[in-house]
Amino acid sequence: MTVSREVVLEGHIIDSGMMESSFGTIMDLGGSFTVEEFDIGRRKDEESYARLLVEAEDEAALQSILHELHQHGANPADPKDAKLQPAPADQVVPKGFYSTTNHPTYIRYDDEWLEVEHMEMDCAVVVEDGAEQRSADRSSGQGPRDDGAEPRAYTKVLNAVEEGDRIVTGETGIRVDPPSRPRDSGGAFGFMQGGVSAERPSESTIQKIAGAIEETKRDGGKVLAVCGPALIHSGAREDMAHLVREGYVDMLSAGNGFAVHDIERDLYGTSLGVDTETLDHARHGHKHHIYAISEVIREGSIEAAVESGTIESGVMYECIENDRPFVLAGSIRDDGPLPDTITDAVEAQNAIREQAHEADMVLMLSTLLHSVAVGNCLPSTTRVVCVDINPSTVTQLLDRGSAQAVGMVTDIGTFVPMLAEQLDGE
Amino acid sequence: MTVSREVVLEGHIIDSGMMESSFGTIMDLGGSFTVEEFDIGRRKDEESYARLLVEAEDEAALQSILHELHQHGANPADPKDAKLQPAPADQVVPKGFYSTTNHPTYIRYDDEWLEVEHMEMDCAVVVEDGAEQRSADRSSGQGPRDDGAEPRAYTKVLNAVEEGDRIVTGETGIRVDPPSRPRDSGGAFGFMQGGVSAERPSESTIQKIAGAIEETKRDGGKVLAVCGPALIHSGAREDMAHLVREGYVDMLSAGNGFAVHDIERDLYGTSLGVDTETLDHARHGHKHHIYAISEVIREGSIEAAVESGTIESGVMYECIENDRPFVLAGSIRDDGPLPDTITDAVEAQNAIREQAHEADMVLMLSTLLHSVAVGNCLPSTTRVVCVDINPSTVTQLLDRGSAQAVGMVTDIGTFVPMLAEQLDGE
Amino acid sequence: MTVSREVVLEGHIIDSGMMESSFGTIMDLGGSFTVEEFDIGRRKDEESYARLLVEAEDEAALQSILHELHQHGANPADPKDAKLQPAPADQVVPKGFYSTTNHPTYIRYDDEWLEVEHMEMDCAVVVEDGAEQRSADRSSGQGPRDDGAEPRAYTKVLNAVEEGDRIVTGETGIRVDPPSRPRDSGGAFGFMQGGVSAERPSESTIQKIAGAIEETKRDGGKVLAVCGPALIHSGAREDMAHLVREGYVDMLSAGNGFAVHDIERDLYGTSLGVDTETLDHARHGHKHHIYAISEVIREGSIEAAVESGTIESGVMYECIENDRPFVLAGSIRDDGPLPDTITDAVEAQNAIREQAHEADMVLMLSTLLHSVAVGNCLPSTTRVVCVDINPSTVTQLLDRGSAQAVGMVTDIGTFVPMLAEQLDGE
Amino acid sequence: MTVSREVVLEGHIIDSGMMESSFGTIMDLGGSFTVEEFDIGRRKDEESYARLLVEAEDEAALQSILHELHQHGANPADPKDAKLQPAPADQVVPKGFYSTTNHPTYIRYDDEWLEVEHMEMDCAVVVEDGAEQRSADRSSGQGPRDDGAEPRAYTKVLNAVEEGDRIVTGETGIRVDPPSRPRDSGGAFGFMQGGVSAERPSESTIQKIAGAIEETKRDGGKVLAVCGPALIHSGAREDMAHLVREGYVDMLSAGNGFAVHDIERDLYGTSLGVDTETLDHARHGHKHHIYAISEVIREGSIEAAVESGTIESGVMYECIENDRPFVLAGSIRDDGPLPDTITDAVEAQNAIREQAHEADMVLMLSTLLHSVAVGNCLPSTTRVVCVDINPSTVTQLLDRGSAQAVGMVTDIGTFVPMLAEQLDGE
Repeated sequence: MTVSREVVLEGHIIDSGMMESSFGTIMDLGGSFTVEEFDIGRRKDEESYARLLVEAEDEAALQSILHELHQHGANPADPKDAKLQPAPADQVVPKGFYSTTNHPTYIRYDDEWLEVEHMEMDCAVVVEDGAEQRSADRSSGQGPRDDGAEPRAYTKVLNAVEEGDRIVTGETGIRVDPPSRPRDSGGAFGFMQGGVSAERPSESTIQKIAGAIEETKRDGGKVLAVCGPALIHSGAREDMAHLVREGYVDMLSAGNGFAVHDIERDLYGTSLGVDTETLDHARHGHKHHIYAISEVIREGSIEAAVESGTIESGVMYECIENDRPFVLAGSIRDDGPLPDTITDAVEAQNAIREQAHEADMVLMLSTLLHSVAVGNCLPSTTRVVCVDINPSTVTQLLDRGSAQAVGMVTDIGTFVPMLAEQLDGE
Repeated sequence: MTVSREVVLEGHIIDSGMMESSFGTIMDLGGSFTVEEFDIGRRKDEESYARLLVEAEDEAALQSILHELHQHGANPADPKDAKLQPAPADQVVPKGFYSTTNHPTYIRYDDEWLEVEHMEMDCAVVVEDGAEQRSADRSSGQGPRDDGAEPRAYTKVLNAVEEGDRIVTGETGIRVDPPSRPRDSGGAFGFMQGGVSAERPSESTIQKIAGAIEETKRDGGKVLAVCGPALIHSGAREDMAHLVREGYVDMLSAGNGFAVHDIERDLYGTSLGVDTETLDHARHGHKHHIYAISEVIREGSIEAAVESGTIESGVMYECIENDRPFVLAGSIRDDGPLPDTITDAVEAQNAIREQAHEADMVLMLSTLLHSVAVGNCLPSTTRVVCVDINPSTVTQLLDRGSAQAVGMVTDIGTFVPMLAEQLDGE
Repeated sequence: MTVSREVVLEGHIIDSGMMESSFGTIMDLGGSFTVEEFDIGRRKDEESYARLLVEAEDEAALQSILHELHQHGANPADPKDAKLQPAPADQVVPKGFYSTTNHPTYIRYDDEWLEVEHMEMDCAVVVEDGAEQRSADRSSGQGPRDDGAEPRAYTKVLNAVEEGDRIVTGETGIRVDPPSRPRDSGGAFGFMQGGVSAERPSESTIQKIAGAIEETKRDGGKVLAVCGPALIHSGAREDMAHLVREGYVDMLSAGNGFAVHDIERDLYGTSLGVDTETLDHARHGHKHHIYAISEVIREGSIEAAVESGTIESGVMYECIENDRPFVLAGSIRDDGPLPDTITDAVEAQNAIREQAHEADMVLMLSTLLHSVAVGNCLPSTTRVVCVDINPSTVTQLLDRGSAQAVGMVTDIGTFVPMLAEQLDGE
Repeated sequence: MTVSREVVLEGHIIDSGMMESSFGTIMDLGGSFTVEEFDIGRRKDEESYARLLVEAEDEAALQSILHELHQHGANPADPKDAKLQPAPADQVVPKGFYSTTNHPTYIRYDDEWLEVEHMEMDCAVVVEDGAEQRSADRSSGQGPRDDGAEPRAYTKVLNAVEEGDRIVTGETGIRVDPPSRPRDSGGAFGFMQGGVSAERPSESTIQKIAGAIEETKRDGGKVLAVCGPALIHSGAREDMAHLVREGYVDMLSAGNGFAVHDIERDLYGTSLGVDTETLDHARHGHKHHIYAISEVIREGSIEAAVESGTIESGVMYECIENDRPFVLAGSIRDDGPLPDTITDAVEAQNAIREQAHEADMVLMLSTLLHSVAVGNCLPSTTRVVCVDINPSTVTQLLDRGSAQAVGMVTDIGTFVPMLAEQLDGE
């Protein structure tokens, strides 16, 4: 005796691969299906609609199929409310909690779809009705905006979960909308398809990235740059400072080392002891980064060192001078660290998360650690550009289900100058 | 005024992504379509069938869409005969010649579908009727088998094209069947999905590869090993020799360097001057490979050196002793070369092509150059395993549209011993 | 008018390259020299002695030469006491402070040479006489051992410097002994020379590494393993657990992710959702690591989860069961984290530092971040083995002036099983 | 009873590491030594002189030491004539033949030192007296110049050895001069030391390379560019064509694929089907390279296609138009090939060898195969610049004992445009 359920696919179900993966999943798991309705979008801006009757041998098999279909964005035709369970303790999720993807997600609550706020993956979803809201407002930065007594759903990372939070469990009443891949070559991000390779036209790709930055700025969007110290070592500091000054970059996310070498270059003309113009190894140069940290500690902070005139140039200088907020996250390989560096990983993650949620476009520039940290907090709808000379790094960063991500395997020391030239030339 | 044409998708159109890409293509190119018939395979061994009516603004747009659809395996519902044009000169193709994929392909000729023999990509397709056949039989190894006076279609690489060959042009009357991805986890090759990464379970993957080799042998298939010199340097020579001796490897494709270092190890105990057991650098070791070549030249050939007792062990020795045919292809970085090395690139390609067409499974072991050369000659239906420590190499080798290819980023010096242990243990 | 100074080179001045670099340095900086005495060790266990008279145009040039010579281990023939200056504030070094190398170092104080304790690079050197000692004992873990009222010298990282610490400045009265490269092929670490390459004999190298571990254990030494999560993903977890259980590994340094995936495998049979034996992607597998963290939080700690029987196997389990101390250092890309993870970078560094100073041999296994953090704290005399599939990682880890470091470019998923087999077989 | 021999070290014995390695070698091999005379160059342009008395237990041990010392450039104080033996057959060397390094080498013949012509490594050395010369002149391009009846010594690769050639064997009467590393930062090639890394200042390094090219041209030298197809794919074709046209590049060495894609871009606007400006994948683009080959075959040669106006731009076009000689070497992965491609590996090597011997500076641009082939033929005194995005490739190319080689890990698609800009701007 078979059991069945109606399932609906909506949106760009062809482009997103949703239909292919749904059909495949049903068959892989031993089920079968009939396409009851199929209305395909015939132009690229039209959405499609398909209604399938999914059949399986027993309820367990059906549930297993429905679970997988859900991952691909196929949802039951007759939505019921999501199940909510209280968190048993701080930082502990109820069994069977729903772990998020990074795609736009909706929770069925009181027969309405609530869009989940602050989408990011590997989170729990907390649902509040209006009454709860006042108390929640007092909690972490992850919390709700003050928008009246309406029920709300939002993500919480594990360590922010508090005892009693009403957490979505199971898979009923949850809708996921995987974004379709941009197909129109007219859009700023339609230019790059296929795998990661160093054998792509470099100058033309940089031109397209410049175009996407300009489009983002024109639309009032914010650009977040995530920078590794290789950017400084490879001599791209002055051009990066230029991008910050001119407002092509609105926010900066980096580690202690990036800021240290940026400041070392200002104070001593070197990056890790090497003069990035003459390529000379400075005498005593191996001490410069320790000195640089010591000087900033003496001043109290980077801002204080800029204001006192100790630091007179560079990326950090331009951030201070032009009010571009920055997050410096600490790590166990840091020297110092600088007083501005957030040494606690959880605290640093929270600061990164806030930046990530504000960003409309993210440039990940030759740092794996910080790019992964930022990427973890991004919804799949944010535009991402990954630049690294190591193809494995680019592959790893792109491999997060984002439809808006492009990668470029190139030298950061030539990329940033060329990008700056493109942005200035237009 | 729009024009339209019926197009048919047949086979594993969901699994192969054919449907998704066909729908996307039509819309990308400004066309529209109606699904006139849609009969989906409900179990994984069932084929599907879809008939679409494709519409476009004018004939040019329609042709452009049909061209792209064809690439994805969608074919006109009312097939006409393929167009044939004579090659204007040796090695010169007619304008608009049809350049092959590596997928199974059929040519419409006299209202019948001829399966194209010797499928490989970037080739021209030559069609012969029975009358022509006798003369063609006298030509290159690429030529036809003696199977009566039936018309035939087969591939020819550019440099084998002869003046007057009847070559398929345009896209009418050509059907391509892209293989579906293996979905059943039961099959020997169903084990690996997703991108290329070093962070996969190594021992278990090697076990699966051993299983696939055994399955191939059980089915009476032939295994071709493509080997780079790193295999010898990294100390895997003895285990590779074992695989040849025991018949897990039926044919060998390599370069001059592979054979030289294999023989160097036999004659002098070193590979590029390093003792692969003690790790010592032998005194005078840098001369050993030149000596080894010189010794083989003195004997006349590897076979002669084995027969005279000069060479007493190793991969080449086992090939000779156990009648495993090998191809040694020359390159511009060779020392020597050995008398067995085919120095002419075209001649070497022909020898490689013959091996490739005989193989049912190919192991590509830490050589990019030779693996690409072999891969160029393989139809997409041959099983391929690529092993290299450089992820870019594995990615590049897998990126050829084969549904039967798996890659593993690992150390050839540990891979071969573990594979040999797996194969022996079972 | 030239100025001159006598300089002495002592020890393995040929093997260490000290002589070559000293001669070169003098000439590069425009000086000249006469070899006044030259007594060369004629056997590999004999030390050499050379006394040079270095001449330069003026005092500034001479000081510059002496500074560089000092870096290479050449010291003034007539040592004077080191200069000490009080730290002006917490975490602030006096101008011109001496920044350490990772080589054994001696400070001239009251006409005696004090060996600097806790050698590690990029530190300040603090000198105490007996009187100060009592108060210092109350300070950080970096502080002095209680060994009487003798004067002492020891390193302090920048953030441990306290106002008033007497810090070595300038270069007078400091002696550095760079270790000689091991040249005798008999020693366990004499086996590997030359650059980093994947084309080395893998099995033989693993055998040598096993020999070095056994030698270290026989000598009563301690082995520290620094492990990345790739070790778990690649299926080497069971063999690593074995090495911990059998006492080949005495201490563990890792990140949150390593412990999470180790525990995930115990609780759910997967690592990042993949069954490392069958290679299957578990249904719901992407939640497993979050569940694993949540379970440990519920229990309170890994130890509590082992004791309650929740965790029953794996690397962390064996650490708990066999009293092998571990440090889990947090990072900004962590999920959770586990309650055992030290989230503050400075605190984590201190814990890492303590382990590093206790270790006689360090295995760095496929983690760049944690290996750099540990490597930063190691003196150049500790044996180090770096294993990674990325040659750049191995190069970067070896490039720290250690004479006792060997690197291997291989797959951690085959390396650990083969190492365990070697260690058991002997 | 010990035996002894006097050995002389001359030249830049400190800079070149000759002294260090000589001392180490003697001790490693169980010998001992006394420094009988030691006259050190005190300025960087002064040569040094050392005379050692080397002692060993018996003659065999002494010979072994002398062999190794010889490799490092230490030579017997009392030179005897080199031993010559006739080659027993074509392509067969006498036992114990002397295999060359790539350093300047001298052969003792009739009590005179003959400088070995056409230095390249892994070759035999043939000595001719005047009488032999006439016949030899008729042999291969590798042969002697017509410079009278003086005795001569020159290299021969194994496959050029002819029966009866008088070949140097043993190690008596051979002197090798390893070049010293350039230490003066004033020279164009003094700028780069240390290992291979992507984290170097990119723009400044390119500026230095431009300076070295200009210096080479000013000195009347010839620049050979070795180019891989990635150069075309990455969009650097126009700038490379510019360098050829303007005479910064005098000769070109490449493979079939480089020329094919260069011509494809001219004929169809694409490289491997991708428009390098718009990044669009051209419809039918996968056929373009086959068409391009077919077109050139139809014309007869690249030169004919340029003259007929079929090819109107690009790197090959500029080579033809400006009389820059090029070598296109075939390989087993080639499509086609073009009529200009030398398909025989030995023949191609000979053509490459001739170019290599004429070059004063070699740019190796993103091709491992061709760069190794050219590098094999270069003496260690030729300036080499290696550019590749893969650090392993750069390391492998630099690892050939050349003192004049610099490497840069960067993107060829940004490198060439920036280099062209630097060269034009000055």
